Amino acid sequence: MKVLIPEPLTAEAFAPFGDVIERAGRDSYTINYGKTARYSDLALLDTLENGGKPTVSIFRSQPAVFPLRILVMERHPLSSQGFISMERLPFLTIVAPRAERPEVDKIRLFVVGAHQGINYHRGVWHHYLFSPAGERDFLCLDRSGGVGKNCDEHHFEEEIIVGVIAL
Amino acid sequence: MKVLIPEPLTAEAFAPFGDVIERAGRDSYTINYGKTARYSDLALLDTLENGGKPTVSIFRSQPAVFPLRILVMERHPLSSQGFISMERLPFLTIVAPRAERPEVDKIRLFVVGAHQGINYHRGVWHHYLFSPAGERDFLCLDRSGGVGKNCDEHHFEEEIIVGVIAL
Repeated sequence: MKVLIPEPLTAEAFAPFGDVIERAGRDSYTINYGKTARYSDLALLDTLENGGKPTVSIFRSQPAVFPLRILVMERHPLSSQGFISMERLPFLTIVAPRAERPEVDKIRLFVVGAHQGINYHRGVWHHYLFSPAGERDFLCLDRSGGVGKNCDEHHFEEEIIVGVIAL
Repeated sequence: MKVLIPEPLTAEAFAPFGDVIERAGRDSYTINYGKTARYSDLALLDTLENGGKPTVSIFRSQPAVFPLRILVMERHPLSSQGFISMERLPFLTIVAPRAERPEVDKIRLFVVGAHQGINYHRGVWHHYLFSPAGERDFLCLDRSGGVGKNCDEHHFEEEIIVGVIAL
């Protein structure tokens, strides 16, 4: 049995998987007659392959039940996919590096802080988004239109567990 | 003197100016093994002109002081621009239809609800984003890179006022 250990999310730790969308540690410049600090280009929105376009959606997510068994992970071979909590509450992300299939020993569990969002890079294995508690809304930034299948799934036979996590 | 009267934001009322990013009144479909309702394509992200790319930024905004005199409006001739409150709090948007310059009698003031975001369509006149109270973060969806000047401004001589608004 593999039990995933939660790690805090930092841009450095998450770099192999994607971007952390946050102000902390990022440069800004002032616009709007001094009224706004703009923190620009926080994520690589990679959505144009095969005629795709960037799109914004809302995911209304049901809560997971813990301990949670990880049965499946997915990847998007044609685009990035970003998520931001619309309630500004912490959530979880489960990722594995780009490869033919997600390697169980390389799966990572990160706690996305209330002031953070994430953007999976193209081809990075990840668990589908779920709420850690209660119904939640997430803003999703990914791809619409275009041609080609943009979701691969891998189903696990191994027993991979996320324990009870207090966020 | 022109005093702007706040109006509630609806998709219908805002249609000449852009999109309302919200779940209410929109169709969804179920994904993620029944765990997620996806509300797709909530805004036209129009960012590809002249080699531009879609980008995600955070705007850290200072509060306006009311009554507020509107001195300037702007438009982006090459892209859309979307905003979502990261604290899920209401905010204000001030818009005017596409034209050579914003016509004072056609300026509209909308209250963006806590569960709504907005996406200005290309060329629509709008006031720069400001917080109605306290420092606030807004997720911004617009354009980076590419060539061409993407901001025109119009400065008013008329006295245009937003009164004190309790949100």
